Amino acid sequence: MGYKFKIDLHVRDYECDMQGYVNNAVYQNYLEHARHEYLQKLGINFAVLAKQKINLVVVRVELDYRFPLQSGDHFWIGSNLERISRIRFKFWQDLYRYPDDKPVLKSVVIGTSLNGKGRPQLFKEVDDLLPD
Amino acid sequence: MGYKFKIDLHVRDYECDMQGYVNNAVYQNYLEHARHEYLQKLGINFAVLAKQKINLVVVRVELDYRFPLQSGDHFWIGSNLERISRIRFKFWQDLYRYPDDKPVLKSVVIGTSLNGKGRPQLFKEVDDLLPD
Amino acid sequence: MGYKFKIDLHVRDYECDMQGYVNNAVYQNYLEHARHEYLQKLGINFAVLAKQKINLVVVRVELDYRFPLQSGDHFWIGSNLERISRIRFKFWQDLYRYPDDKPVLKSVVIGTSLNGKGRPQLFKEVDDLLPD
Amino acid sequence: MGYKFKIDLHVRDYECDMQGYVNNAVYQNYLEHARHEYLQKLGINFAVLAKQKINLVVVRVELDYRFPLQSGDHFWIGSNLERISRIRFKFWQDLYRYPDDKPVLKSVVIGTSLNGKGRPQLFKEVDDLLPD
Repeated sequence: MGYKFKIDLHVRDYECDMQGYVNNAVYQNYLEHARHEYLQKLGINFAVLAKQKINLVVVRVELDYRFPLQSGDHFWIGSNLERISRIRFKFWQDLYRYPDDKPVLKSVVIGTSLNGKGRPQLFKEVDDLLPD
Repeated sequence: MGYKFKIDLHVRDYECDMQGYVNNAVYQNYLEHARHEYLQKLGINFAVLAKQKINLVVVRVELDYRFPLQSGDHFWIGSNLERISRIRFKFWQDLYRYPDDKPVLKSVVIGTSLNGKGRPQLFKEVDDLLPD
Repeated sequence: MGYKFKIDLHVRDYECDMQGYVNNAVYQNYLEHARHEYLQKLGINFAVLAKQKINLVVVRVELDYRFPLQSGDHFWIGSNLERISRIRFKFWQDLYRYPDDKPVLKSVVIGTSLNGKGRPQLFKEVDDLLPD
Repeated sequence: MGYKFKIDLHVRDYECDMQGYVNNAVYQNYLEHARHEYLQKLGINFAVLAKQKINLVVVRVELDYRFPLQSGDHFWIGSNLERISRIRFKFWQDLYRYPDDKPVLKSVVIGTSLNGKGRPQLFKEVDDLLPD
């Protein structure tokens, strides 16, 4: 599967828990970071929008853990983004270990945008830049 | 829905991100903590098992984010546990805000046990204590 | 030593790293949480101030790690607060394991308040409530 | 001041708290990561030692926060390491923003090595590789 956006990362020791592997929650940090970088590349800056009270938020996450990362591991995340309704968008994000491309995690993340009152709202700043 | 296990928690400010709400990944921390407390109550100690190279691991997570928590919020997590195969078990874990019981997050977490070589294995220590 | 403010906490498994002990950085999370609770008791709400662009910030931290916490440990944090200049305040925060009161960490944290431009500023909201 | 070891990093959005800046505790994560990379370059692998029950531990940290990092910032950490006794070693670690080299944080971190019983012990694996 082709990915529109890729980033390379490597495990930091504080991300590993007592089992010696990256803690499950940390993968969500990795995925968030990859999404924000991807959005940045599309011209959408998460932090700038947050200051304008345009909050990009996650409404659903599905994570399939295939193989755990540990200290010293390098890995990459491939992401794709699709519009699934006027106001909802969906990321596919998969994580692979370097250099053998062993699948580590598969995920689907569905998001939307909320206004300052917490209501779903389509903003021109986001609408123009998301894929149709 | 009745829950077999409940814990009360409250938001710590460092758990909130620049949008002013608890960061998405932090909910997985909360859920993990609730699962480990629940297992402890059943007689299964995660840390003791980890030292014996019996690793309880998560293989799939589904999270539905309904309403965000913020600084000062108190909340509770209700958890249920079911065996779904000889070697797989499933948690339902829902998070509600206090005192209005507003639904914050719904989740399903599927886990298994791995031996020191990373292979699924049914351990007596776990098998005896999980519900049938 | 008497403490003006105490809170009870216990270790969550995700806070432990591959050595099986609470990661060094996590103690700063604990201390921040204790400070915010202490300030709250004095009538100073960190989050409300942040929204008003009154940022309480840390300028120096000293941490002496005496004994590590691990999975299952319960502990308490004792905090004291003193004004050290018109605009600077100092917390002493010590952490002890339950039930044997074994010293875990000693710390000194010096803070100040900054305005929206990042400059030190004495705010009436804070000044009135801090000890002289 | 010259640094024996440097690494480049950049802020991830989940590391920022409700004030919009990197949370104080996160800098300790950055510093730990830089130390482990530095030790790795010297031939000392933190994770491998931990598995052998040789635990490199921090006994004291001093942090001076000069200027806060925010979303989008790139920065570098310069580290130096000195032996201060047979069994204690000291890191100087300073953090600077890119590209203007604005000082962000100055720190001193003192460490030692503990055996499996939590007692200070000088290990040949570490002794041979640390600077005199």
